[in-house]
Amino acid sequence: MKIIVDAMGGDNAPLEIVQGALAAARARPGLEIVLVGREAEVRAAAGPGLPSGVSVVNATEVIDMHDDPARAFRNKPDSSITVGLTMLRDGQGDAFVSAGSTGALFSAGTLIVKRIRGIRRAAMAPLVPTAGRGVVLVDCGATADCTVEYLLQFAYLGSFYAARALRVDNPRVALLNIGTEDTKGDALRLETYAALKAAGEAGHLNFTGNIEAKEAVKGGCDVVVADGFTGNVMLKTIEGVGSFLGKELKGMFMKSLKTKIAALLVRDGLNQFKERLNPDTVGGTPFLGLQKPVIKAHGASKAKAIENAVYQAVTAVEADLAGQIEANIGLMKMSR
Amino acid sequence: MKIIVDAMGGDNAPLEIVQGALAAARARPGLEIVLVGREAEVRAAAGPGLPSGVSVVNATEVIDMHDDPARAFRNKPDSSITVGLTMLRDGQGDAFVSAGSTGALFSAGTLIVKRIRGIRRAAMAPLVPTAGRGVVLVDCGATADCTVEYLLQFAYLGSFYAARALRVDNPRVALLNIGTEDTKGDALRLETYAALKAAGEAGHLNFTGNIEAKEAVKGGCDVVVADGFTGNVMLKTIEGVGSFLGKELKGMFMKSLKTKIAALLVRDGLNQFKERLNPDTVGGTPFLGLQKPVIKAHGASKAKAIENAVYQAVTAVEADLAGQIEANIGLMKMSR
Repeated sequence: MKIIVDAMGGDNAPLEIVQGALAAARARPGLEIVLVGREAEVRAAAGPGLPSGVSVVNATEVIDMHDDPARAFRNKPDSSITVGLTMLRDGQGDAFVSAGSTGALFSAGTLIVKRIRGIRRAAMAPLVPTAGRGVVLVDCGATADCTVEYLLQFAYLGSFYAARALRVDNPRVALLNIGTEDTKGDALRLETYAALKAAGEAGHLNFTGNIEAKEAVKGGCDVVVADGFTGNVMLKTIEGVGSFLGKELKGMFMKSLKTKIAALLVRDGLNQFKERLNPDTVGGTPFLGLQKPVIKAHGASKAKAIENAVYQAVTAVEADLAGQIEANIGLMKMSR
Repeated sequence: MKIIVDAMGGDNAPLEIVQGALAAARARPGLEIVLVGREAEVRAAAGPGLPSGVSVVNATEVIDMHDDPARAFRNKPDSSITVGLTMLRDGQGDAFVSAGSTGALFSAGTLIVKRIRGIRRAAMAPLVPTAGRGVVLVDCGATADCTVEYLLQFAYLGSFYAARALRVDNPRVALLNIGTEDTKGDALRLETYAALKAAGEAGHLNFTGNIEAKEAVKGGCDVVVADGFTGNVMLKTIEGVGSFLGKELKGMFMKSLKTKIAALLVRDGLNQFKERLNPDTVGGTPFLGLQKPVIKAHGASKAKAIENAVYQAVTAVEADLAGQIEANIGLMKMSR
């Protein structure tokens, strides 16, 4: 298996990206890694002598935050994202990992790698930390304006991903809503509820009904289905509250000698606590619905996060989500 | 000033409701309180002898969670909500406080007390705990499907409320969105952004642009404007993460003798921490856009929360939001 890694994407590129990719190559003999980026910089970041299985492909341009996400991959044809995704499309690799611009990666992924036939929109599906094993949030911001059909497809994409890549048995799929009764929500939710309920009753999905954000965070389902706007608000709220409470907690422990001693006494627990909310360990976000796996790592990723994102890419390749989606695409189409 | 209190609403009615209302009456001589509910139960909860200024109005029915929110106030014409809101409409009191069913209170408020002329939808506007002094979230769930005009009106309602009731100087009003650039968001957000920007440029609102949920939680604005669906998801996510992290933290401190000692050492800080997230101290949620103040207290309210909600009602009466909204209604209408 060969994973293509965007060596130039993210706040800590190329050093942390390259180091993370090398760590994965060393840990998994037989795994091939292609680092795409400015060759001299990539080789400098790698240090002397590449481990076996690791190669470098030169790409002279870098897409950054100032580029228009929708056009960047065309305006910069020799960027690491354009070159890497083109290699993926052409079969010169099995999956692509990037910590670069989400918008550019999403546009380029959709237009170069392309969606699976019949899938209306690709979706981003992070595993959100919750009580329990976490919940797949689909979509978390790729598509702000959604139709019932998009949401129905997101439900299948998330369910297949949870089952095959995360190995959740018979994943519980729920619709993010503002109440649990079937009369709750806006027009989009009312209609989507009916479509998901029908899919559940037909045995195609384990649809468990509407779920409120509060219960989703407590781990009340395995896959939460949302339009990209609402999903993004939920995700960013979780991040914000985590950061806000983390700071409050830090302030509490730094107040006096007494509280600093307390911090020492619970040091292990505090570290575990931080670890649970750490994007480095949580890993990357897959784009679901494309013909081949594309994994977006957090922009602030350090080596450990990239290493984990590479493993996630390996899992995604092994899961063959695209094959399962193609086999079931008939269930995901709505007549109009 | 006379505050009408629904003695029968909420999980802890009538005892905690009545005790909270009595505490407010005792603390603020001259403040009149009318307790509406089953007279015998209300008097029993009050104990022997009502403080001066406190009276009881009998209402034999109680609206509960099993009633259809939209019809409950009509199906139960002698309920504490119907009787209390009718008194408010008829000038037999200046504001209404209830910990009862949100949906029933909202429907009854809209249909009995009525919206201010020109206001398309009333909104619920809780003060959400954030870093800093908190942020007014408008709407948080009353109206799931919104138009641009609704959101424009919510912005004014929230701004007036923050300025006059919460005494925030020139409140920073922001639109909840999934990015800060003016090209971000769904169709509703793009159009609303333009309307709010125009209002800002005309000097009617201190519109500071789009805000992501993460920055709103960190206190990046004073008023955050959202459709009721998204606002509710944000609010419930905050609640969920608070509860989840609170439990994790408790588990951390309960693990061993060592960690229990640590908990003792930071006890004061931990209590403050809990206090910040405690709905009892945060108080009630005003319904904005009605002709007279209606305050929804949390369903789980104990006496302290009711006492605070009564004070909040007093502040709302003094702020005369309805007067300010009527004077500015011309700014809040969109031609089609």
